[in-house]
Amino acid sequence: MFVDRLIQQIKEKKSNIVVGLDPRLDMIPKHIREKSYRMYGKNLRGAAEAIWTFNKEIIESVYDLIPAVKPQIAFYEQYGLEGLESYQKTCRLAQEKGLLVIGDVKRGDIGTTSKAYSDAHLGLTDVEGERIEAFPTDAITVNPYLGDDCLKEFMKDIVDYEKGMFVLVKTSNPTSGQLQDLEAGGKRIYEIVAHLVHQWSREMMGAHQYSSVGAVVGATYPEQAKNLRRLMPTSYFLVPGYGAQGGTAKDIIDCFDERGLGAIINSSRDILYAYQKENSEYKEQNFGRAARNAVLKMQEEINGLLLEQGKQYW
Amino acid sequence: MFVDRLIQQIKEKKSNIVVGLDPRLDMIPKHIREKSYRMYGKNLRGAAEAIWTFNKEIIESVYDLIPAVKPQIAFYEQYGLEGLESYQKTCRLAQEKGLLVIGDVKRGDIGTTSKAYSDAHLGLTDVEGERIEAFPTDAITVNPYLGDDCLKEFMKDIVDYEKGMFVLVKTSNPTSGQLQDLEAGGKRIYEIVAHLVHQWSREMMGAHQYSSVGAVVGATYPEQAKNLRRLMPTSYFLVPGYGAQGGTAKDIIDCFDERGLGAIINSSRDILYAYQKENSEYKEQNFGRAARNAVLKMQEEINGLLLEQGKQYW
Repeated sequence: MFVDRLIQQIKEKKSNIVVGLDPRLDMIPKHIREKSYRMYGKNLRGAAEAIWTFNKEIIESVYDLIPAVKPQIAFYEQYGLEGLESYQKTCRLAQEKGLLVIGDVKRGDIGTTSKAYSDAHLGLTDVEGERIEAFPTDAITVNPYLGDDCLKEFMKDIVDYEKGMFVLVKTSNPTSGQLQDLEAGGKRIYEIVAHLVHQWSREMMGAHQYSSVGAVVGATYPEQAKNLRRLMPTSYFLVPGYGAQGGTAKDIIDCFDERGLGAIINSSRDILYAYQKENSEYKEQNFGRAARNAVLKMQEEINGLLLEQGKQYW
Repeated sequence: MFVDRLIQQIKEKKSNIVVGLDPRLDMIPKHIREKSYRMYGKNLRGAAEAIWTFNKEIIESVYDLIPAVKPQIAFYEQYGLEGLESYQKTCRLAQEKGLLVIGDVKRGDIGTTSKAYSDAHLGLTDVEGERIEAFPTDAITVNPYLGDDCLKEFMKDIVDYEKGMFVLVKTSNPTSGQLQDLEAGGKRIYEIVAHLVHQWSREMMGAHQYSSVGAVVGATYPEQAKNLRRLMPTSYFLVPGYGAQGGTAKDIIDCFDERGLGAIINSSRDILYAYQKENSEYKEQNFGRAARNAVLKMQEEINGLLLEQGKQYW
């Protein structure tokens, strides 16, 4: 089951860090880009191959330190079919390295359409009885604006294929409150979504009192996160917003339960492009080592605080 | 500007019908599927080519009758890269035939990520100064759950590239009310989203008192639609849910203004698979003619009612 595999990885690796694979072409080391343009041209293929080369080295540099990666599909979709091929290859390589892959796709639609998205990213696509994998991911992020019709379709594949989902509850961006924080009948919208998530979570419980139905809860809203931990006791939190977006170890500490479980913390820019930091000791040729070092530093920050609070899970 | 091109097409063709290109493999005529499997195998390529052959004939059969098509990307994404290639080719052919293409992608994310989605579907992708089109669409559908951070990014490309968007306000599915109908501060969530959409709509007004920023309003909720027409006087409505989902001409009539403008009505299954209807006079070889006939029948229903109500725009 997805959540059990996740917790096993967390315990083995003593890490609850997810590396967000959000390739930004202009931040990829120049030597990689130039080689790719020489081979394929300054076009979608050239960009996509540079991304793939970059991702490969990132994954090979950090896979033994982390339980999961989270490629953000938008950063691949913008390079068209070529970009999406790099997304596929990235997901496959991460899985081969033993990592869980969380596709940050934020899909969600009416029932029959959500079924198609679910086939694409969680289940298998049926072609006259042949069952084929379209995009190889272990879990995805899901948008709840259309309600249960949508979630139900993903749920089927979560059960049948032992996959997972993280429903957007409280996102990390500045205007997330515009709808999510509105109060309806004495409850915030994100609390109402949390209630839905909690109900669905009961349908796919693993061995450690956690479910394969999780929630996205931004690191940038620590008060809300504390409240949400209480409202969704059986849901793992996928926590974006750490680092570049402003979240710190103190901000995410209440996403964890008393055992130090319950949350995976995503960081993208601070890890991928650590070599570019002002005081970085690494040159662009060593971006992989810089990323590894950034993961170790983040692990120290988070595990240090968990230890301090007696929430040691390892 | 997107909305002006849309209205021009509507007036020229005397039609406010959008054909939803939602290919369902098992409903595509057998002779098309079998030919494709013989050439490519029972795999993603075989499925994708069958879809493309089917779409081609549908587009060629109806393009002179309608202003726009709306491919639902989930039905292509489920066939992986091969499916998305058919999506691209379908969008391109529709544009070549003079149709506007509304990509039903329901994307939406935090700011920088929405920018990547926007580059992918509305704007152009930058590869070292080369500006390249990833997916060729004139407008897309957008999910508002993350608030203005997200909408703002799409807005830039709508202005720069004269594209359009339809923001999900009130969707057509049975559980759409779970979040959308909740009341916060005396207003329903969908009314609050409508207010946001109305504000954005003022930023990209066309020549006919309508904006390139529109809204998705389901045909299955006529009372809400009437209310929303009043709240978003400058937004074109993209109305799903007609036909197979239960919406009738009476249900959608209040989506139109007094001039008979303001709404485009989507139908997918009832048109694409008209040849399969119980009392159909068409055989599967003639699925294109059956689709054409279904469009004409729908046009008659809608235009008939507009005429009856003195909302004749042609």
